[in-house]
Amino acid sequence: MMQLTNTQWSITEENIAQAALEKAKEREINALITTVRQQASGIQEFDDLWYLHDFLSARRYDLDGKYDSRNATVIFALAGLVKEGWLKLGELEGLDKEKITKVSAMTRII
Amino acid sequence: MMQLTNTQWSITEENIAQAALEKAKEREINALITTVRQQASGIQEFDDLWYLHDFLSARRYDLDGKYDSRNATVIFALAGLVKEGWLKLGELEGLDKEKITKVSAMTRII
Repeated sequence: MMQLTNTQWSITEENIAQAALEKAKEREINALITTVRQQASGIQEFDDLWYLHDFLSARRYDLDGKYDSRNATVIFALAGLVKEGWLKLGELEGLDKEKITKVSAMTRII
Repeated sequence: MMQLTNTQWSITEENIAQAALEKAKEREINALITTVRQQASGIQEFDDLWYLHDFLSARRYDLDGKYDSRNATVIFALAGLVKEGWLKLGELEGLDKEKITKVSAMTRII
């Protein structure tokens, strides 16, 4: 499932990456639910409804791609989530050092 | 602006139809805002967010067309709104009798 060209992933590493994605997704979704509830309670007029709709459209598009573990570039996904604060580097413990180093380096580049 | 083939609309009638559309739109939007607030406060998980998003997409598509007064078929729009309860027939007072009869007949046909 999870592959990065020229990079080997053990079953254990795949499970770790999968668990990390799920953890980050749950955190991000919970934050999004809170935001949407707040926005919805503040809706006063027509335009506010469509603002909420546009907001949800954008977040859905973003989230659908971001947590797709079939993605060949899961290491980029992990780096992005660390960068955004949904994951901590320590939560990737169990991946080999090379991968963790790559993730860490990417978060400093972006 | 508002035209129906073979039907003449006076300026006064156009204004009446426009005001009726706006009144109905405001009522429908207010009801929609209440619904969206309730749905949003009940969001518990991922799927609920996208259910809300799908709901808003459908309502937006529906409402965008429904209240378009450039529509050549404003009399159908008025009939639909009466049928749905967003307008009362009496609120079309000032339109000529033929138009009111048509609207009334349509609401009984649909």
